[in-house]
This record gives sequence, structure tokens and C-alpha cells, in this order.
Amino acid sequence: MPRPVVLLDPHPRRAGSIFDPGQMRRLHALADVVTEDIDGRLPAALVEAALPRISAVLGQTDLPAERIARAPRLRAVINVEGNFLPNVDAGACAARGIEILSVAPVFAVPVAEMALGLALDLARGITAGDRAMREGKEAYGRFGCAGSVLLSRARIGLVGFGNLGRALRRLLEGFRPKILVHDPWLPASAIADESCRACGLDELLETSDVVFLLAGATRDNPGFIDAEALAKMRDGAILVLASRAAIVDFPALLAEAGRLRIATDVFPQEPVPADDPVRRSQMLLSSHRAGGIPAAFQDMGERVLDDLGLVLRGLPPMRLQRANPQTMALMRSTPGREGAMPKPAGAA
Amino acid sequence: MPRPVVLLDPHPRRAGSIFDPGQMRRLHALADVVTEDIDGRLPAALVEAALPRISAVLGQTDLPAERIARAPRLRAVINVEGNFLPNVDAGACAARGIEILSVAPVFAVPVAEMALGLALDLARGITAGDRAMREGKEAYGRFGCAGSVLLSRARIGLVGFGNLGRALRRLLEGFRPKILVHDPWLPASAIADESCRACGLDELLETSDVVFLLAGATRDNPGFIDAEALAKMRDGAILVLASRAAIVDFPALLAEAGRLRIATDVFPQEPVPADDPVRRSQMLLSSHRAGGIPAAFQDMGERVLDDLGLVLRGLPPMRLQRANPQTMALMRSTPGREGAMPKPAGAA
Amino acid sequence: MPRPVVLLDPHPRRAGSIFDPGQMRRLHALADVVTEDIDGRLPAALVEAALPRISAVLGQTDLPAERIARAPRLRAVINVEGNFLPNVDAGACAARGIEILSVAPVFAVPVAEMALGLALDLARGITAGDRAMREGKEAYGRFGCAGSVLLSRARIGLVGFGNLGRALRRLLEGFRPKILVHDPWLPASAIADESCRACGLDELLETSDVVFLLAGATRDNPGFIDAEALAKMRDGAILVLASRAAIVDFPALLAEAGRLRIATDVFPQEPVPADDPVRRSQMLLSSHRAGGIPAAFQDMGERVLDDLGLVLRGLPPMRLQRANPQTMALMRSTPGREGAMPKPAGAA
Amino acid sequence: MPRPVVLLDPHPRRAGSIFDPGQMRRLHALADVVTEDIDGRLPAALVEAALPRISAVLGQTDLPAERIARAPRLRAVINVEGNFLPNVDAGACAARGIEILSVAPVFAVPVAEMALGLALDLARGITAGDRAMREGKEAYGRFGCAGSVLLSRARIGLVGFGNLGRALRRLLEGFRPKILVHDPWLPASAIADESCRACGLDELLETSDVVFLLAGATRDNPGFIDAEALAKMRDGAILVLASRAAIVDFPALLAEAGRLRIATDVFPQEPVPADDPVRRSQMLLSSHRAGGIPAAFQDMGERVLDDLGLVLRGLPPMRLQRANPQTMALMRSTPGREGAMPKPAGAA
Repeated sequence: MPRPVVLLDPHPRRAGSIFDPGQMRRLHALADVVTEDIDGRLPAALVEAALPRISAVLGQTDLPAERIARAPRLRAVINVEGNFLPNVDAGACAARGIEILSVAPVFAVPVAEMALGLALDLARGITAGDRAMREGKEAYGRFGCAGSVLLSRARIGLVGFGNLGRALRRLLEGFRPKILVHDPWLPASAIADESCRACGLDELLETSDVVFLLAGATRDNPGFIDAEALAKMRDGAILVLASRAAIVDFPALLAEAGRLRIATDVFPQEPVPADDPVRRSQMLLSSHRAGGIPAAFQDMGERVLDDLGLVLRGLPPMRLQRANPQTMALMRSTPGREGAMPKPAGAA
Repeated sequence: MPRPVVLLDPHPRRAGSIFDPGQMRRLHALADVVTEDIDGRLPAALVEAALPRISAVLGQTDLPAERIARAPRLRAVINVEGNFLPNVDAGACAARGIEILSVAPVFAVPVAEMALGLALDLARGITAGDRAMREGKEAYGRFGCAGSVLLSRARIGLVGFGNLGRALRRLLEGFRPKILVHDPWLPASAIADESCRACGLDELLETSDVVFLLAGATRDNPGFIDAEALAKMRDGAILVLASRAAIVDFPALLAEAGRLRIATDVFPQEPVPADDPVRRSQMLLSSHRAGGIPAAFQDMGERVLDDLGLVLRGLPPMRLQRANPQTMALMRSTPGREGAMPKPAGAA
Repeated sequence: MPRPVVLLDPHPRRAGSIFDPGQMRRLHALADVVTEDIDGRLPAALVEAALPRISAVLGQTDLPAERIARAPRLRAVINVEGNFLPNVDAGACAARGIEILSVAPVFAVPVAEMALGLALDLARGITAGDRAMREGKEAYGRFGCAGSVLLSRARIGLVGFGNLGRALRRLLEGFRPKILVHDPWLPASAIADESCRACGLDELLETSDVVFLLAGATRDNPGFIDAEALAKMRDGAILVLASRAAIVDFPALLAEAGRLRIATDVFPQEPVPADDPVRRSQMLLSSHRAGGIPAAFQDMGERVLDDLGLVLRGLPPMRLQRANPQTMALMRSTPGREGAMPKPAGAA
Repeated sequence: MPRPVVLLDPHPRRAGSIFDPGQMRRLHALADVVTEDIDGRLPAALVEAALPRISAVLGQTDLPAERIARAPRLRAVINVEGNFLPNVDAGACAARGIEILSVAPVFAVPVAEMALGLALDLARGITAGDRAMREGKEAYGRFGCAGSVLLSRARIGLVGFGNLGRALRRLLEGFRPKILVHDPWLPASAIADESCRACGLDELLETSDVVFLLAGATRDNPGFIDAEALAKMRDGAILVLASRAAIVDFPALLAEAGRLRIATDVFPQEPVPADDPVRRSQMLLSSHRAGGIPAAFQDMGERVLDDLGLVLRGLPPMRLQRANPQTMALMRSTPGREGAMPKPAGAA
């Protein structure tokens, strides 16, 4: 049997940000690799020439039906960017049983830990307390923590229960919480299997002490967390936005900061304009820093290689997420934003 | 059988901060209560007159051997302050089988959640990231989180494994960490029972990604976390001081801030002097706000009533901590600090 | 949009054994149902007539490529028998993105509980002890349990880590075991994600206190647990066969009964011949009773309806198992055996 | 400081059944040991001579007030038998702060695993199924498991929630059960802390799918599980008696066997008389084999040494159970039964 061939076309990432040297050796042991180390997509000529031989694509290569038709050995397209472009013909892949896989799972634990950290910060006033000490305005002991609350045994609502929601649920185990989940794409039983309770969005918002917004942005849900939804939440309740800014009516969110304790890792426009009032708001602010940590990229290389190995052996992939053609068509995330920086400042 | 009598002498707390109205009714259902609602200790004459009848003391009343001798029905002394004064003759209590109980367990979960929140803050730069956004200096995506690390599967060291350490271990369950414990008062097997591994302090400091300092201050351990100990920790390791400032050489700690990521909830002098350099340090600062949250006081009333009920029925207490005469003699915590405030500012 | 149509062809099961009355109502609310309540496959004419309209098949209907071609709306084939017949053209389904789903997950928890029960029986001599009391030969206290061992903190080996292995791992959580897993279809990382350690078969057999055989029978693995493999196990080790008899060299297994503590739920020939020596062996015997309990069938109806509902909405199925064309081709389980009874006896 | 001295008087056990050779060396490293390796209590003269020097007693030595008065250094009495004789003056110990410790915790996990094994046997008919196969009367597949039930997500009632109940709760974690607890010596909050719900005995019996009887025998509770109590249980419910026969009206229990699924490890008279009808009953029978397994004795040695080490250092014991004078006075277990054997048979 000839050695399998894979096309490596990671732009906007670089191969070196996905595979460390050991992982790169493991990749070359699995397959011959067609690639070029450039800051951009692979040249069309290179792609076209490779199509007849490749068993897998690692990257965001344009794959219209015509190209898929010219790649008879192709078994898997592994998107390494996190979001899907509309440049792969999902129907043509389905019609050939070609797996479309996403690295999204690598961000689940990093974002979940950040979301928990933001919630604990709001529950205990960690950032505010540090600021107070630097300004000489701190209060000590119980006078300093009148509004502090526990997450242990709290009533926690998760809006969205994909990889991220599941990872967060797992982190919360030790807190013995009551977890409500709203996810219209899941049957109640799948939620009960994870020891959570499915419920409607209104009940979740009205009764939760802490709400995590973890839903992806779809064609159908822009701004569904709007002023009316936010108004259902209790005074002092905690709200952490950890998925996509597009699911929230951001001005309404800003208007509730103070009555609610709010943290966000995402913004409608990134970089946030220098004079955006959110910068001076009572929200706890994080500049889209929840997912892209070094451990996620380390994990990405490992998961890609694990599933590439399985797929090349004719076994089902286990560690990446299978893209579903129907849900892919619904998703509305803009890729390529990582690393964007505010105008006035250099990278950290 | 006559109704039991208890002496309620909560200073420096007030009865109303320990028992909410429902709990107060439950107290009166359990026993007759001798008390006065004053801002100070009960008058000696009141105490002396009550001694022959009381079954329990709730508070910090002076109980030298002579008073204990005059209280033949006394079965329990329930300290509601958290720290022990040297004003109860523990030997005389032991010689009569009188339980000395502490409310310390009510602070375990609140402090553990704060400690975890501080660790997550340091791991992800939450406070620093919020400050950067307010100053217009933030970086986005992976450029914003180059040094960020996960707690999941991290190597975590707990120095001290009492109520607080156990509560923190439980919170960490969902992170699937490897936990090392150093606690010279515990056999290795008691630590293994909690799925942790006992080890020496040096190994713990040298190998842990995150170290939590959770040990009480004793006669024997002032400043045992000194420059030499801190130097054993890896660059970038996380250190959270959540128990007592006295166990750390504070100037040495300050000198390591930056090389290590450090958070502290306690300070050698509280309020911290206005010009103390710690206020401008790279440490994450919390003004002794980890324990005294409203939920702790709610829990305090419940636990005191639970154990009072058990003791009055001749059953062993279950929900407060038994003071051990030997370890009591070793403890060196200064009580009465709660609510102290920095000179320049009012209470929050 | 017209109401979806499903073909219900459950033979060798009956519709009433899959759906209780409430579930049947739920099915009719989801779709129009084409079926006949007969003890056998649906008539070909009925199937052929329905093909153009059906969105899903619930059952084991023959689906060669020609039939699939005539069913343009078909989105899912839900096998309700547990094993796959070679009567569905998996390639033709893959080429259309038609999901082939199996109800196998409903048996995971029932079989896992039985497997644990068998292991505890062997560890403590429960069946043997009951027999001894009936025969007046029992010993009491420690004289009665000289060979008894604990599962808590034991070293446990799982051969095969699909639905069943994962369900068993979850049941074992409270025992705090060290779990080794051998599964050649899984990367080590997928096993580590479940807090187990991947290892080779030899190491697993040589070092485990308890071995659970949970692997399916494939074209490649008949009798792979043979005399040589069994000889690697320690004297007195526990071995539970809970998946398929075909993976074991059964005479070799019988020969080790006594040196090893062995339980089996499956046999090479079922019903077991009346004079088969296994009936008088030292093995603990169970007549293929691990999976087909009433709760499994209750769960089956629920999972089928959950995933049918998702598929009809264009969402990915969540609660049944996706059949993988490659692994389907490898599987070698004979369906249709349930309910077979030994000649000499009536049903229990 | 002189080396501490301990009196080792383990009858009815032998030193070699408590301490393995390594543990014996560890004992001698901790203290000088006064003992004689005889099959009976230490001679009074030896005990009397040692009293002025001993820091601890390991065993069941008579310790009336006069002897305690003559042992000024005595800090701990460690009963290694499991039950308490009325031969230690608990009041005199309390009056000196001498700890009375029990090895009962070593039996918690062994008995809990046996109790779970018995419950799984009843839920799945394991012993009955093995018997059927030996008699050629087995049914296969779903015809063989019509009455089989799951423990997963079942409603489980624990009567008694001491060491044993807590160990069993931990084993059950993976089954995700709803656990009800009835224990009149515990406040509801202590039960809630373990994620169980406190309830009255009647509700527990009426609503549980599985009931575990785990309560010790006290002066106040002989036969409290009587015909009336048993009648409250549902048809087919599972009942496992794992603590003491005295808490049950045994003839009433026998009368319910068949309607209920019952297992017992204890009997009113042990050895059970040869002609006792229980031997032919429908109950699952175990001859007091739940606790005294080799691992318990291994653990006993370790725990005794751990706590002896702590006590000799002036630290609180951690791994044995503190005897409470009040509850000791209530307990009604007859010691010395272990190893008793039925007349007709030799040891296994």
C-alpha cells in the first residue's frame, strides 16, 4: 500500500503553531506531507496537483465539489482554525463519507476555566478588591465582602451545552451545583445524562444565581440575549459571556452592568474602539483571551494527529468534532480574528 | 428533666450576626438562653450566676478551671470567633469530657473558593487583563494570553490539609489535578484517602505548578515559607496565600513577585499601611476577604445549632471542629481582627 | 412541509418491546408511521411502496443500494436489534450522508452493572457462600473469607473501551481504582481523557487484579484471549467475560477456572448443551442475561425517539451510536439470539 | 524523654493478625511494647506492672477506674476487636482526656463492597442464575431477566449513616442514585453535606427501590425493622442487611422473603442451626463474611500505627473512630463471635 499523503494548509495559523517538533515528526511518520511554509494559503497549483493523491486536508483549503471530485482518496478535512468558512462543500463531502472535523474541542477546557475564573471574580470581587487596595480604599474582613456569594451549591444556568458547556459542567463538579441547561439542539435526556436539568431560557434566566452564555452564534440567534431576557435575571446575579458577542444585544448588556454582575470575553467589534464606553463600564473585561492559550495549541496538534491516525486506519475519529452539514450551515462565526490588536498598543 | 440552659456570649460578634431570626427561634426551642445584647463580653456577675445551670457556652467567655468547676452540667464550649483565645482551660475541659468546638469549618468553603478564584486569576491574568482594557493596552486572542496556563491536570501543591485544604481538594475535583500535600500533622495514609499524595515541603515547592498555602500559624512555623523555600519554586509558578500571613516571610514574598505569580489574602499588618510597597507590587491583593462572607455566617448559625442539639442529646458533635488541647496550645492566630479597616477609607 | 414518514420494521423485536404506549404516542407525533404488527419482517411490497416517502427506517429492513436510491428523503437507518446484519449498504448510506444508528448504547449500563456484580461475586464468594449455607458447609467471619479481596483501589483492566467500557469505568468511580485499558481502536489520549491508562494486552493481563473482557467480536479477533493470554494472569485474579464468547478460546478458559476466578455471561453455543461440562465448572455462570433487561428496552424507545427527533430537524443524533462503515464491516456478532432457550426448560 | 511504652493485649485476635512483619517493626520503632504472644488476655500481673509506664493500650484489657488511675501517662486505648466490651471505664477516660479508639473504620469499605455485591446479585439474580444453569433450567436473553432492575439512578435508602453508610455512598457515586438516609443521630445538614437527603424511616421504606440496613444495634433499637416496617416496602424491592441481626425481627424478615428480594450477612444465632429454615429460604445468604477479610486486617495494622503515632506526638487521631461515651453506653453488639463455625463443617 502506498504511503498516505496529506495536504497541510494551515493559514491563518502556521504549521509551527499547530505542531511542535515532536508532533511534526509524528505527522511525517503517519503520512507524506504536501505543504509550503508561507504566510497565506497554499498556491492553487500545488493543491490541484496534490488532489489525486491526498487522503486528508489539514487546513482551510477551498474545497468546492469540483476539487472533491478530483480527490478520490480523500477521507477527512480537518479544519484547524476553529470556525468554518463556507469554502468546503459539505454536501459533496457527506456524499462521499468524507469526515469534516473541527479542532473546536481544544478550546473547551481553556474557555471553561476562564469562564469559571470570571464567575469567581464576580462572586468575590477579586479584580475590584485588588483595584481597591491599589487605591487605598479597601475594607477588611466581613466589611469587605458584604456582597460576596458562593458558587458551591449555587443554581447555575448554562445557555448552550456543547463542548464548552460540558467542560464547564465537569469543572463545576466539586461545587455540587444545581445546573440548569438551555440548549434547543439537545433532547432533555442528553442533558440529564450529564446530571443537569434541561429547561427553557426564561426559567433559566429567572432562577439562576450564575448564568454562563456558551452558545455559538447561528443564523437564527443574533442578539437573543436582549434587554427583555436580561431583565429576567435577579438583581446581583452573575452573567458571564464566554462564547460569541453576536448572541447578545450588547448595548442592553452594558445597560445592565451594575444591577447584574457581568463579565465578557468577547465584544461586537474587536479590537474594541479606544473610546468605547465599555472600557469604563462596571463589567469585568477580557480581550478575547479565553481560548487561544498555549495549552490549546499543544492539544490541537495532538488531537489532529490522533484523528488523522484513526482516519487513515479506517477507524472513526474520536478527538475532534465532527461537523454536521446542517449545523455548519447555521453557524455564523467570523474566522480569522485571532491576534487582532487594538491600534494604540503593541502585543503583550 | 429541666430544660437545658446555654450561655450566649458572642463578642466580638453579635448574636444577630451568628443567628438569623429563624435560627434564633431554633436556639430558643433547644434551650433557655442566658445573654445580653451588648457590644462586649457578658458581665461577670451574669456569667457567674449562670454557671451552675449551663449545659453549653456559645462564645468566648473566660473559662478558667475555677469557673469550669462551678459548671457541673457544662458539656460544650462553642467558640464562635474562629480563633481561640487562651482563656479557656482546655485541660480542665478534657478532664471533664467537655467538648471545645470551633466554627472554623464554616470558613473552609468560602476561603477555598476565593483561593481557587485567585489561582485562576493568576493563571489567566484576569485582573491584569481587565486593567489593560481600561488602560487601552490590551492584546487579543493568542497574543493576549501567551503566559496563560491551565489548572486542569496541573500539578497542585497544598501546604496544610485541614478543613480548608480538604474543601479546596473537593473544588478541584473537576480539574483532574495531581495533588501533592504537605502536612506534618497527618499520616500519609490520611492524605491518600483523599486521593492526594503526601510529600515533603521541598518536593512540593520544586515540582508544583500551583501552590496553595493553607497552613495555620503555630508556635513552630512562623515564616517557614522563607526566601529559601520560595526560591525552590519554578519561574512562573503560581502561589496563593490563603491562611495566615505569619507563616510567610513577607519581604521575601514581595521580592519574588514577578518571577512567581503570587496572590495573597492576608498581610502581616492589617490594615496595610497606606504607603506599604505591597500596594504597588505585582502581587494580586485581597484585603482578608476570603472567609467572612454572608454565607459563612449563615452556615455558622446552622452548624452551632446542629451540634448544640447533638451535644444536648448526649451525641457526638458532627459539624463543628473539635479543638485538640495539644494543637490549641500550638496555634498562634490573633483573633478579633475582622472588620478592621484601613485608616484612610470608610467601609465598602 | 409534509409530515415526515418513518418505516417501522422491528423484527426480531416487536414494536411493543421497543416503545411503551407513551413512547408510541410520541412516535406518532413526530411522524407518520408505516408498519404492520407482525412476527416477521415487513412485506417487501409495503417497503417498496414506502421508500419514496420515508425519512427514516426503524428496524432491520434490507437496504441494498437500489432501495436506498429509491428513498431520496432517507436520512437515518436506526437498527433496533443491537447487532448489524450485512443487509444495509453502508457505502451507499455514507455516499448520501444517511446516518446508520445503533441502539447498542442502551445495553451499556445494564451490562456494566452485571459485570460489576459478577466481579464482586467472585471477589467475595457470594454465590459460593450462599451455596455453602444451603449445604450446611459455611464458615463464619474471617474463617469464611480468607480469599476475599476488595475492588476498592484494585488494579482493574478493561479489554475494550466502547460504550460498555465507559459505562463500567463510571460505575467504578467510587472504588478509586487504577484502570488500565487495552483498545487498539483508540488513541492513548482518548483513554487518558477518561482518567484511565492505555496499555498493551500483555501488561494488562499480567498486572491486573480484575480483568473485564468487553471487546466486540470482529473478523480479526476470534479467540484472541487464548491459553497463552490467560496464562499471563496472576493466580486468583478475577476475569469477567461480558461481551462476546467468540473473543475467547473457551476450552482454554474452562481449563483456567479454579486457578483464576472466572465469570461469564456468554457461551460459544447458546443454549448451552445440557451435558456441557461448563455447567459443572468452577466458573460463575450467567445465561446471557446482562443486557436485555426491561430498563434497556425502556431506554431504547427513548433514545430512538430522541435521535429520530433530532435527525428530522436536521440536527446531529446524540443518543444512539453512529455506525462506522469500516468497523461495521469488521464486526462479527450473530444477531437474533435473544430469547433462545435451552431445550429442556421453559422460560423463567 | 523516655521512649513511650504500649501494652499490646489483642485477644481475641493475635498480634500477627493485626500487624504484618513490616507493621510490627514500625510498632517497635514507635514504642517499647509490653506483650506476650498467648491465646488469651495478658496476665493481670503483667498488666498491673506496666500501668505506670504505658502511654497506650492496644487491645481489650480490663481498664476499670482503678487501673486508669494507676496509668498516669495513658493517652489512648485502642480497641482492636471492633465491638466494645463494657470493661473500660469510659467516664474515667473522658475525665483524663484519654482517647478510646475503635478499629471499626477498617470494616467500612469491605462491608460496603459486600453490601453492594449482594444488592447487585438480587437486582440481577446472579446467584439464582448460576444455580439455574447448574440445574439446566436457565432462560437466555430477555426471557432470563424479566425481573432484573438497575441500581443506576435508583432510589436507594440507607438506614444508618456511620462509617459503613458513608463508604457505601461513596461506592455508589458512579450509579448516580438518589440516596435517602435515615439516621436519628445525625442532623439533616450532615447528611446533605454528603449529597444525600435525610428522611424518616417510613418514607425511606415506602419509596426506596433498594434499602440497606446499616445501623448498629443499640439498647433502644432491637427489632425496629419489624413486620410493620417491612410491610411498607414495595413488592420486589431489594433489602440488604449488612450490620446487625438484632435490629431486625428475623421471623418477620423470613416471612417477607419472596415478596421482597432480601440478602443478609448476619443471623440472630451464629452459627445458624443446621435445621434453621432460613437455610432453605429465598433469601440470599452470607455467613457473616462481609467484614473480616484480609484487607481489613492489613488496614487495621496501618490505622492503629498511624493513630498511635499521632497520639504519641500529642496530635489528634485521624484514622480510627473516637468512641463517644454516650453512644458506647448504648451499643449492644456482642463481641468475640468472629471465627465461630457451624458444628458440622470445617473452615473453608
